Amino acid sequence: MKNIALLGSTGSIGTQSIDILSRYDDFNIIALTCNTNVDKMYEQHLKLKPKYVVIMNERAYLEQRDRFSSKVLYGLEGIYELMTYEDIDIVINAIIGNIGLMPTIHAIKNKKNVAIANKESLVTSGKLIMDLARTYNVKILPIDSEHSAIFQALRGNKLSEIERVILTASGGPFRELSYDEIKTKKAVDALKHPNWSMGRKITIDSATLMNKGLEVIEAKWLYDLDISQIDVIVHPESMIHSMVEYIDKSIIAQMSRPTMLIPILYALSYPERKKTDIEPVDFETLSSLHFSRPRYEDFPCLSIAFDAIKKGGLLPTVMNASNEELVYKYLKDEIGFYDIPKYIEKAMAKFDNRKLTSIEEVLEYDTMSREYIRGL
Amino acid sequence: MKNIALLGSTGSIGTQSIDILSRYDDFNIIALTCNTNVDKMYEQHLKLKPKYVVIMNERAYLEQRDRFSSKVLYGLEGIYELMTYEDIDIVINAIIGNIGLMPTIHAIKNKKNVAIANKESLVTSGKLIMDLARTYNVKILPIDSEHSAIFQALRGNKLSEIERVILTASGGPFRELSYDEIKTKKAVDALKHPNWSMGRKITIDSATLMNKGLEVIEAKWLYDLDISQIDVIVHPESMIHSMVEYIDKSIIAQMSRPTMLIPILYALSYPERKKTDIEPVDFETLSSLHFSRPRYEDFPCLSIAFDAIKKGGLLPTVMNASNEELVYKYLKDEIGFYDIPKYIEKAMAKFDNRKLTSIEEVLEYDTMSREYIRGL
Repeated sequence: MKNIALLGSTGSIGTQSIDILSRYDDFNIIALTCNTNVDKMYEQHLKLKPKYVVIMNERAYLEQRDRFSSKVLYGLEGIYELMTYEDIDIVINAIIGNIGLMPTIHAIKNKKNVAIANKESLVTSGKLIMDLARTYNVKILPIDSEHSAIFQALRGNKLSEIERVILTASGGPFRELSYDEIKTKKAVDALKHPNWSMGRKITIDSATLMNKGLEVIEAKWLYDLDISQIDVIVHPESMIHSMVEYIDKSIIAQMSRPTMLIPILYALSYPERKKTDIEPVDFETLSSLHFSRPRYEDFPCLSIAFDAIKKGGLLPTVMNASNEELVYKYLKDEIGFYDIPKYIEKAMAKFDNRKLTSIEEVLEYDTMSREYIRGL
Repeated sequence: MKNIALLGSTGSIGTQSIDILSRYDDFNIIALTCNTNVDKMYEQHLKLKPKYVVIMNERAYLEQRDRFSSKVLYGLEGIYELMTYEDIDIVINAIIGNIGLMPTIHAIKNKKNVAIANKESLVTSGKLIMDLARTYNVKILPIDSEHSAIFQALRGNKLSEIERVILTASGGPFRELSYDEIKTKKAVDALKHPNWSMGRKITIDSATLMNKGLEVIEAKWLYDLDISQIDVIVHPESMIHSMVEYIDKSIIAQMSRPTMLIPILYALSYPERKKTDIEPVDFETLSSLHFSRPRYEDFPCLSIAFDAIKKGGLLPTVMNASNEELVYKYLKDEIGFYDIPKYIEKAMAKFDNRKLTSIEEVLEYDTMSREYIRGL
């Protein structure tokens, strides 16, 4: 039996985690957290009867804490306290955005394994987190389908025998459009993603390919890769979730229908696998799988991400924070599609890059970058 | 340093084994064997300076044994003696046909790990061989690209967590032809295989899909599968060499350019991988991979193989021996393409099936089946 704290339970990964994990007796979700969507967490709490819940939003906490039969904690401090509880075996960090960083740090420092869906922790602070995980002998288990694919393709193999990692990208909803067509697209168009059911922020990132850029950076830290070892290939069917090429030029690929249920379950059941009734890949009806080079020129966010991680230091933090703010502006129709890469590059040029030595610097640069974007 | 005995050094797998293994200092091929192609083995011996060579053909042995600076042994008995030599660490069995069975048995009984390319050992006597390998604590390492793919896809995973194994098939040279077109095809047409450079016998088996049928049976024994767990899918590009689907519906696939060099090297370097300069898969130019259901009706050998292993016992031996004899007849233009399945089925119907309890029975049924086919 694994006792699980599910951070960000009302988001896309949070709800899918509950969906798949509650099918098995081996998992017990004993803590839920949410930001403002307390009604949804309340419903989850009726079903799961968790010992603890955390409400991040102050007003929601004050107004609604009495509804719950669980112990109710408040805010980031509440999550930090939760992380100290002995009865939690493993933490799923499904919080969206850089606000998820400190919960990851606290989970590790309390020797909890972390199943990580929060991209920003690794993008901004991957080196610090992986060093910390080694120090505290804690496992960082990927939930993202791409990183789960790499994790599975690495099973039984040595990191030192990796030649390169090939991340697959669906190409997003604008894959087949020209630059001039993409230029006019609104968030509402981007939100019609062909393969994956995801949250709104990630869906926009998928349209700009920034999502893939963030994953490149995550893969670098998770698997201790040089950035030259990471390739991206567009694969519109989203059946191959990523691949590892070894030094002998043999490639191990992980495939499944595009569903987050498999990577979530894998991270939680690892090193075991659990039987699911998810529909298997049917190669007869699948008929063909396609691959092509990413159109770097029309989706500049991917090149920006490669550039940010090559230069390193605090630049990925600036990129990530700017992107997050710009995506929210795009979702509100305040800016156009190509304003996202344009202003990320402006932000990256504005701040002096520094070597990354502490989480405090990450938080400082994160705040500075957001203020800069908001002030534009 | 691994000291290797290479049985069947002049065939396709034999020569490719020398090609790849002689690029590394870690492998030392100290024994070669051939049937009649002594001139070729002589050239190999000049390059490799093996301590031992074996000539299977009596006349060739008597006439040519004095050319070699190595110790020269004769016939199957010579191979059996070779297998007792302490300085041999691992045996590559690249002998073609059921004549390769007893060398496998002797290798195991002398506690040598066997890298096996000889399909017939496993097809006819898979249960006995795998039981024997367990008794003598010996590894059976696949060289076939499909079984190497499964072996690699199983790394770090449990056999008990396999849902199914998906063997890929190129479909062979007649994949796109109609029944009426295939009917008239001669061996010379079949020998133009689109993807793989292989021996003549295997190339014909690839055209009839019997090759895939033999591999289904091998996979069953190598990985302790129920026959219902094995699927075959046609994949004309031969980039995905086979796949394992696990109980969570996650699939691990192994890919590379179609070359035997990678599986040969993998079997010999296992559990390590060695760096090669083989050209990597280029997904940008590859563009697409295709999959389709095998045309069982037009390639009846595949169904015959499934039928033979389902009924079990000595039937796979009858099937294999008949097929081997019929392929040689087809290579000599003595019979037509569809005579191969027709007469295999006749042979399978003729002999009473028995439970398989000893190698002697396999050899007896093998001989009976061959005599039956030759006498037609």
